[in-house]
Amino acid sequence: MKKILAAAAAASLMALTATAGAFSKPVTIASQGSFTAGGSVAQAEGTFDNAKPLDPAGQTLHGDHAYVFYQKPVHPKKNAIVFLHGAGQSGKTWETTPDGRDGFQNIFLEKGYSTYVADQPRRGRAGQSLTGGIISNKPMEQLWYDNFRIGLYPDYYPGVQVKWDEGAREEFFRSMTPDTGAFDANVISDAMAAVLEKSGKAVLMTHSQGGGPGWLTAMKSDKVKGIVALEPGSGYVFTKEEAPAPMETSSPFGALKPAIVPKDSFEKLTKLPIVVIYGDNIPSERTEQWNLDNWRVRVDMARIWVDTINRHGGDARLILLPKRGIKGNTHFLMSDRNNGQIADLIEDWMKEKGLAE
Amino acid sequence: MKKILAAAAAASLMALTATAGAFSKPVTIASQGSFTAGGSVAQAEGTFDNAKPLDPAGQTLHGDHAYVFYQKPVHPKKNAIVFLHGAGQSGKTWETTPDGRDGFQNIFLEKGYSTYVADQPRRGRAGQSLTGGIISNKPMEQLWYDNFRIGLYPDYYPGVQVKWDEGAREEFFRSMTPDTGAFDANVISDAMAAVLEKSGKAVLMTHSQGGGPGWLTAMKSDKVKGIVALEPGSGYVFTKEEAPAPMETSSPFGALKPAIVPKDSFEKLTKLPIVVIYGDNIPSERTEQWNLDNWRVRVDMARIWVDTINRHGGDARLILLPKRGIKGNTHFLMSDRNNGQIADLIEDWMKEKGLAE
Repeated sequence: MKKILAAAAAASLMALTATAGAFSKPVTIASQGSFTAGGSVAQAEGTFDNAKPLDPAGQTLHGDHAYVFYQKPVHPKKNAIVFLHGAGQSGKTWETTPDGRDGFQNIFLEKGYSTYVADQPRRGRAGQSLTGGIISNKPMEQLWYDNFRIGLYPDYYPGVQVKWDEGAREEFFRSMTPDTGAFDANVISDAMAAVLEKSGKAVLMTHSQGGGPGWLTAMKSDKVKGIVALEPGSGYVFTKEEAPAPMETSSPFGALKPAIVPKDSFEKLTKLPIVVIYGDNIPSERTEQWNLDNWRVRVDMARIWVDTINRHGGDARLILLPKRGIKGNTHFLMSDRNNGQIADLIEDWMKEKGLAE
Repeated sequence: MKKILAAAAAASLMALTATAGAFSKPVTIASQGSFTAGGSVAQAEGTFDNAKPLDPAGQTLHGDHAYVFYQKPVHPKKNAIVFLHGAGQSGKTWETTPDGRDGFQNIFLEKGYSTYVADQPRRGRAGQSLTGGIISNKPMEQLWYDNFRIGLYPDYYPGVQVKWDEGAREEFFRSMTPDTGAFDANVISDAMAAVLEKSGKAVLMTHSQGGGPGWLTAMKSDKVKGIVALEPGSGYVFTKEEAPAPMETSSPFGALKPAIVPKDSFEKLTKLPIVVIYGDNIPSERTEQWNLDNWRVRVDMARIWVDTINRHGGDARLILLPKRGIKGNTHFLMSDRNNGQIADLIEDWMKEKGLAE
């Protein structure tokens, strides 16, 4: 493996400084800070001896919690927004976009919502993991570039909603951060339910891999008043009786399987409004273009899932952006060039559901 | 190893919600956001084939950058403050304190400074590491509790400047997050110099393990206009000719060694004001109480280092808080109960040096 110094980056990112993170007008913050929530504690057998600090006997390890940075504007709306990132990401995914514009953290703060941006257990600043883990340094970024429907690396899909020079593309790759322990939707949703105890009533906004833990969080916390799921990647929950068969795909991630939950848990998702949103370049027929087919099955399962929720008296909606004339969105709806338009679309849905007061 | 669920925490942390992160009055932010800076790129041999995404051939890995969250108040002071955390910590160390009060991020923002809170390469949200690594789950927290001079676990030193209930103590432990690759002061200071290119002129504030990379950062970036080093842990830089001998200690971390740098690098530290601050319970004579003796040698080397800088025409000051009548500080000066007083003391020094305009 060869190593290259990233020399071009500094100059390119410098050019972004002038506009990066600039609210359209200054925002006044009443309070802000961070906290951890949830998690477990492990303790080694034996008794701690202060004179033998390198001996683990009796010592503890706190881990598997979430980390959250929150901001409350003056006169905030009654529902906060709690953000849960996707795979390979941290809370950074909601902050400044790779090309230096405001992300959803700033956009929704400016709209008047308190924001709670989480790093899930075993990711980012919530790195302490009771399982431990191995950090790989295998280069696999082009896999993700393709899978996120930006284009076929190094190209862009025509009309795609990103505006990247080399510096922005680099920033996109550097926004990724690895798992520090095994991904566990149950551990994550336990911690996120604890986050909701701190945030109070909130709309839970998830992205990609965060979708599955998001459904489980709403089952575990009555503080979740609505869910906005951006391109859920897996973990659609069904009762055993109603679960669809695994969906075959040319994607190397393999067949998409439903997650099985008890009926009373599933029913909880019929008690709050839910919107699921997918972007562009997702085919309706199977294709050997694996990076697109990967999302075909996800939209197919989303359709079945939304129907199932609604058949049980729920209020779920599936929005396919191209059907609304909104074209070119990648997997990262919240940082695409039209993220302001996407935020407005989400807030319109929140207003319709009485979540925006 | 037994596993215990942290059941008591939620209730205890809830009690903190009312006061956590509350500015004394609302703060108006002109812009805020995040970026990565510095780092390297590795690329696997061969050519990437979009149809074989699981084959690393030709794929890249971006890593070893820093992550930064920044905030600019309206009408900011001309020097920003760039914060670099210590061992086992992330940017969180400058945010809300374990007992739910404002940390230095908020305190200095409220004083009118733009703040840049970093996660160093291979830590927190800057987790992608070109070296890879192993995340340990060995329980070792009592070692850190003692080493940070909070007390001899589970006790507190008399008059110690923390006010922790069980929830705050838990939050302290959960604020820790592991390395995702080897600690490398050179990699860190390269990335931090790139951070300074983004922040512009700034005072660099380091804590503990961040002290060593901090000196190197100032050698690599002329944007560093002053350094505030809170309890530097290691990496005091000297020329080969002037380096003191390693200092023996009863601490299991072993003898404290100076770091050797070329003369022209060392000289750069004589061109800007520097203050080094240590807290309480640091003995002046060797003791078998390893957790205190660990800091005795650090203060001893700080004294030699400050003298050496000043002998070369520099402007370095060593402040031992107890000598100023400020008692009870742990290793975490920026989150101790009297952190407002510590911040004022730091800003007084900045004013004296013309850094606070």
